[in-house]
Amino acid sequence: MKKYLFGVDVGGTTVKLGLFNPEGEVLEKWEIVTRKEDAGNHIIPDIADSIKAKMADHAIATDEVIGVGIGVPGPVTSDGTVLLAANLGWGKRNISKELSDILKVNVMAGNDANVAALGEMWRGGGRGYKDMVAVTLGTGVGGGIIIGGKIVCGATGAGGEIGHIHLEDAETDTCGCGRKGCLEQYASATGVVRIANKKLAADSKASALRNEEVSAKAVWDAVKEGDELAIEVANVYGEYLGKGLAAVANVVNPEIFVIGGGVSRAGDILIEYMKPHFEKYVFPGAASCKFGLATLGNDAGIYGAAKLVLD
Amino acid sequence: MKKYLFGVDVGGTTVKLGLFNPEGEVLEKWEIVTRKEDAGNHIIPDIADSIKAKMADHAIATDEVIGVGIGVPGPVTSDGTVLLAANLGWGKRNISKELSDILKVNVMAGNDANVAALGEMWRGGGRGYKDMVAVTLGTGVGGGIIIGGKIVCGATGAGGEIGHIHLEDAETDTCGCGRKGCLEQYASATGVVRIANKKLAADSKASALRNEEVSAKAVWDAVKEGDELAIEVANVYGEYLGKGLAAVANVVNPEIFVIGGGVSRAGDILIEYMKPHFEKYVFPGAASCKFGLATLGNDAGIYGAAKLVLD
Repeated sequence: MKKYLFGVDVGGTTVKLGLFNPEGEVLEKWEIVTRKEDAGNHIIPDIADSIKAKMADHAIATDEVIGVGIGVPGPVTSDGTVLLAANLGWGKRNISKELSDILKVNVMAGNDANVAALGEMWRGGGRGYKDMVAVTLGTGVGGGIIIGGKIVCGATGAGGEIGHIHLEDAETDTCGCGRKGCLEQYASATGVVRIANKKLAADSKASALRNEEVSAKAVWDAVKEGDELAIEVANVYGEYLGKGLAAVANVVNPEIFVIGGGVSRAGDILIEYMKPHFEKYVFPGAASCKFGLATLGNDAGIYGAAKLVLD
Repeated sequence: MKKYLFGVDVGGTTVKLGLFNPEGEVLEKWEIVTRKEDAGNHIIPDIADSIKAKMADHAIATDEVIGVGIGVPGPVTSDGTVLLAANLGWGKRNISKELSDILKVNVMAGNDANVAALGEMWRGGGRGYKDMVAVTLGTGVGGGIIIGGKIVCGATGAGGEIGHIHLEDAETDTCGCGRKGCLEQYASATGVVRIANKKLAADSKASALRNEEVSAKAVWDAVKEGDELAIEVANVYGEYLGKGLAAVANVVNPEIFVIGGGVSRAGDILIEYMKPHFEKYVFPGAASCKFGLATLGNDAGIYGAAKLVLD
């Protein structure tokens, strides 16, 4: 009898789904719309219907399904209870039980950033490691802590919220979390743009960045071209990111940091500008960790969700 | 057949030992001298001799001993290899195997701060919790991270080195680790004295601290007496400690921080001066954690070492 896993990544606009074999190969992937109306009450039944249809397509019997893993944008405790997923209209709910009651298979749930970290460990940039921190540099800064191959959910589902480590007393703008001076305010896509715009306003030197709307991509492209002002921006960026990751390393001392998210498309150069600062701030006994890039992109969530069921 | 555990805490001056039952009650505790000469090669045989003698005293057979746990002042990896214990004269060595070869029982080893954290979780201030951070405010600042009831050793045995989280760019003094601006430079016993001496030099107001040699105890005693300058010192102290623990909470989101070490003898007042700062800097979703005081004092190490063998 063949065995299968489903991995589900619930986002605010679409739900991504994947059918996997236990070796972690994706056999098929697809998406459905996230129907958030009616307090998000359609989302779980829609996922169940989509999985049932896919099982019918492939003539997969219920007892061939090891389980369904599901990643959710909000805090999830280690028993799989979603505490809140405001983007979906959800308050506290036990979605593992809800989906399992419909499908009659084992269902495991986790926070989307943590689940994506697990995906990168299983089949992505963290392959072969058991103590890993995934860092997502996107609109915000997220993290996923993996210790001994398992996600650190935290007591209230806030494990890995490394984007909100306080780094800057002098900050006057407020972070999305309500605090001031969080790592996310500098190391996110909007963070690099803020740093660049401040440099452009404070310094009159010529820069390619003066000719276009500043974006994270534009900054890193200019760095690669040797643009002096962009390089100064990259150094400020690298100092904040390095300082934040050094704090993380002093707590959990991972084997590797796996860097993903939109900003990481800049590639290894981002690590080059961060690493000297990391080394300056980290405890010497934790300094030998590796840095790598995430490789699964937007699929990390479905991979990690599927892996949840195997653990 | 009765069952027994031994817990061993190796320090630079003495080795503490304890005989336990599996319920975690200490039946007897004693100490031997740490003989550091000859590259520390006597230490393990001395421990073995002492345990054998205690087994003979109590007529304990080898098969009644579940195992021996041992805490060591240095980094220890999750397989029990000591990477370095400079205070003992040790380089890299597998002390679990060395001691097990002599005693013919299971031996587990861990870093002393991490092992003490485990002890506090088992029988001390962290009883009933599984996700806990122990913070030791002594000559230095140490930490022990427990997730799901297990110690987070880290890839190179540096898990929980929270005393070396960088907090202060403006620091000019160098920390014991070689960096500048570490939590330990403010939150240790010497840290509180440094803060107090700076305040005393910069401010001419009357204070009980001007009449005696400043110590951590003197500062907290003066705070309890309402001494204005001492209260300012406590606020600076609390801000650094709160900021550091907030960073830790954003990474692992524990249920509780258990505060121990010499400085913590000040009692709950230390937590009172730290907590408002913690709450200001922590990610809101991780803010609900508890704070408690360690209760096992210098015995935390032997308790935790014994618990290592049960896990």
